[in-house]
Amino acid sequence: MRKFNFCAGPAALPEPVLRQAQEELLDWQGLGCSVMEVSHRSPEFTQVAETAEQDLRDLLAIPANYKVLFLQGGATGQFSAIPWNLLGGGSKSADYIHTGQWADKAIKEASRYGQVNIVASSEDRNFSYTPAADSWQESDDAAYFHYTPNETIGGVEFPYIPEVKSPLVADMSSCILSQSIPVEKFGFIYAGAQKNIGPSGIAVGIVRDDLLDRALPGIPRSLNWKIAAAGGSMDNTPPTFAWYLSGLVFKWLKAQGGVAAMAELSEKKSALLYDFLDRSDFFSSPVAKDSRSRMNVPFVLADEKLDKLFLQESEAAGLLNLKGHRSVGGMRASLYNAVPLEAVEALVAFMADFEQRNG
Amino acid sequence: MRKFNFCAGPAALPEPVLRQAQEELLDWQGLGCSVMEVSHRSPEFTQVAETAEQDLRDLLAIPANYKVLFLQGGATGQFSAIPWNLLGGGSKSADYIHTGQWADKAIKEASRYGQVNIVASSEDRNFSYTPAADSWQESDDAAYFHYTPNETIGGVEFPYIPEVKSPLVADMSSCILSQSIPVEKFGFIYAGAQKNIGPSGIAVGIVRDDLLDRALPGIPRSLNWKIAAAGGSMDNTPPTFAWYLSGLVFKWLKAQGGVAAMAELSEKKSALLYDFLDRSDFFSSPVAKDSRSRMNVPFVLADEKLDKLFLQESEAAGLLNLKGHRSVGGMRASLYNAVPLEAVEALVAFMADFEQRNG
Repeated sequence: MRKFNFCAGPAALPEPVLRQAQEELLDWQGLGCSVMEVSHRSPEFTQVAETAEQDLRDLLAIPANYKVLFLQGGATGQFSAIPWNLLGGGSKSADYIHTGQWADKAIKEASRYGQVNIVASSEDRNFSYTPAADSWQESDDAAYFHYTPNETIGGVEFPYIPEVKSPLVADMSSCILSQSIPVEKFGFIYAGAQKNIGPSGIAVGIVRDDLLDRALPGIPRSLNWKIAAAGGSMDNTPPTFAWYLSGLVFKWLKAQGGVAAMAELSEKKSALLYDFLDRSDFFSSPVAKDSRSRMNVPFVLADEKLDKLFLQESEAAGLLNLKGHRSVGGMRASLYNAVPLEAVEALVAFMADFEQRNG
Repeated sequence: MRKFNFCAGPAALPEPVLRQAQEELLDWQGLGCSVMEVSHRSPEFTQVAETAEQDLRDLLAIPANYKVLFLQGGATGQFSAIPWNLLGGGSKSADYIHTGQWADKAIKEASRYGQVNIVASSEDRNFSYTPAADSWQESDDAAYFHYTPNETIGGVEFPYIPEVKSPLVADMSSCILSQSIPVEKFGFIYAGAQKNIGPSGIAVGIVRDDLLDRALPGIPRSLNWKIAAAGGSMDNTPPTFAWYLSGLVFKWLKAQGGVAAMAELSEKKSALLYDFLDRSDFFSSPVAKDSRSRMNVPFVLADEKLDKLFLQESEAAGLLNLKGHRSVGGMRASLYNAVPLEAVEALVAFMADFEQRNG
């Protein structure tokens, strides 16, 4: 029996997607083999790859002057790829906003290849808010400006798109496809798949094509966006099953009404949980109200000695993976696209009951 | 209906593995979700990861002073990783044997980071043989010695393990787990999974631990073996489904009798096909007899105008993916572990019939 899964990633996938994959796992398209067992250059897989790209282009209204890449190595691989691809065009410095653990990893890796300017940081209050735009110390000559629109661990989300001087680079791992975005305002968007796209092992990159000529000379081939773009993300064998599953998720998203429907749904789901947290005397959100993530909702119990009981009982109630990240503790409910409203309703009902019994 | 699949990669997987994956795709271990939908740090997935490593250690008798890595980016990613990890220990030069397209890619990437010495090449006869060991021009001070035990495209395989002065590095993508190997003779073994291990999107690395301190200073984090080893190949989210499936393949291999049984079977399968090719007046092998691959068997028809008919009829007969690599033409039958003897018997019977009708 399928349960409600609030895992931060690898996260819940849409059940119809998994059912289709299950049904055709041994014999795909009547070929007599699995989609995993065909060449990535076969006509059948080429169709999968191209359709997935087109569906993603449709979903996000990606302009024609942007390349869509399907990459390996996750967002972490892109933490390296970004400076390698963008610091060879003249400027050797980059602007970064520091909003938590994922921003920090991106900053640390970029610092190995160029000068990183920390435009703003929310470290002073344990990364529980997004620094106000009028406080940012932007450079005049940055090669790019990097930020993390949604911090998966801290549960902090920027409620707006930054207006900046240099090409805007965004790690959208945990918020991509949850709302419409003006792609044309970005230089590079990237996202590990395992939250809102598909299984782990594939990442999506969306890059404005004029940025493909700024790589540092020694860039490893596997990190090179230009090579990936020129080869249709098949310079070497891509993760075909993950690409196929991502394509099924894109089709499912379109059938649900696309990112507009997902935006509405994620507003509804997160509001339901935050409203409950704000009304509760027992549970609370550690995140500033104007920066609360629609995707990842951390919360704490008034008495942390009850954490273990909460996790035991919630799991027994069919509410999975509510434990907070090992580095911060507490609880976290991730509400990605594949998590239905009913899951959040069940969670809130459980929490209300738990509070009544233990509060 | 499942057909016989001779794809060079992504290649056939063992049917029992796919059946198990299918059965538990929506509800794994009674958790109420897929193996794709749990955290890579959950106790359940940790068990998958550790068991897969131990099974691979058992299968290949990997000594304790070797680390086993599960990596992203394929063997191509390792073409970069190898010089980055090994050229920072003093010597900035490396020895490479050039035996075909895959060796060439490894050489080209390494040449960007250090001095590559081509120890030997079989380019003079279109990469149809392995250069004799007594002809090699080995360096005295190489950081490592790289070779490709089996060239997937050319169908050329070294029938022995080279004895060399520097740490031996081998791209075993298309021959790993097809026979026992003396791991202790190697410094680093690597293999993309999509031939003899699992689906595409994961690669295995086996590295002698004293080689983990020779990285070039600017090595990208995602290519760093030491970081991968220290973090249990979970510095970032690994491709969990591919890792899980690889683990199922390892279990299946053990149940079949391990690599000894696979060695016997691959001898039998390849001998059946080569014997037929050598007896035939119509089909032939372009590869020198002492260097013929047990894994990838390229062959040509006496009249290439019949290639198309051969492919049409073989596919209709349930024999899939026999077309040779786009760069060389002709045919190729890949006989990896998951390809049963019956598949080769059916192929030979078909070819005999085709020859009788068209020869």
